[in-house]
Amino acid sequence: MAELLSIRSSIDNIDATLVFLLAERFKATQKVGFLKAAHRLPAGDPGRETAQIARLRRLAEEAHLDPAFAEKFLNFIIGEVIRHHEAIAEDHQAAENNGPGANKPLLSSPAPSTAVDA
Amino acid sequence: MAELLSIRSSIDNIDATLVFLLAERFKATQKVGFLKAAHRLPAGDPGRETAQIARLRRLAEEAHLDPAFAEKFLNFIIGEVIRHHEAIAEDHQAAENNGPGANKPLLSSPAPSTAVDA
Repeated sequence: MAELLSIRSSIDNIDATLVFLLAERFKATQKVGFLKAAHRLPAGDPGRETAQIARLRRLAEEAHLDPAFAEKFLNFIIGEVIRHHEAIAEDHQAAENNGPGANKPLLSSPAPSTAVDA
Repeated sequence: MAELLSIRSSIDNIDATLVFLLAERFKATQKVGFLKAAHRLPAGDPGRETAQIARLRRLAEEAHLDPAFAEKFLNFIIGEVIRHHEAIAEDHQAAENNGPGANKPLLSSPAPSTAVDA
């Protein structure tokens, strides 16, 4: 049916946009991670995350999207950001252990989920 | 730090775009749901979902995004679409039970997760 195919084609266009946008978002959070590491800033900022959730819920209402879903979505993305941060932390740790500072204590574990700037 | 604030502001813009795009996507899948119901088409199309996953993984690679994450993301969205479909099916069922067709058999359960057009 022509109408069904037309809507599916719009869904496909939206999905492509979502993928490229998510890629940009991860580039941005990666930049934040490196910036904080370079300036020895704490990884986490719980106030920032609370503000992000409140803002997304408000925007979701404006868009007639379930605010609970918007919050679940942000948490889903943050979960992936944490996975990235952990991978970066592991790379740093491996580099420290194999480099001239191999006798220094191990880096501390990655920040807990609620404390990552995402 | 100005650079950190600037990147966070970009993340906030991306998040707003994601929320409004997701709202459009749910409007589209809702249209598909109503269209299929009106034309008595089967709810599911497993071939469509397989094609969507393959395409998103390919686009993710192009965007330097983890293809496994792109697939997880689509499944996350599909989970929400299923929740919407189930809610619509329940509404229809309630309407049937309370309307002139109250003696007709109950509507079948919502389509299983792999068979929803998402």
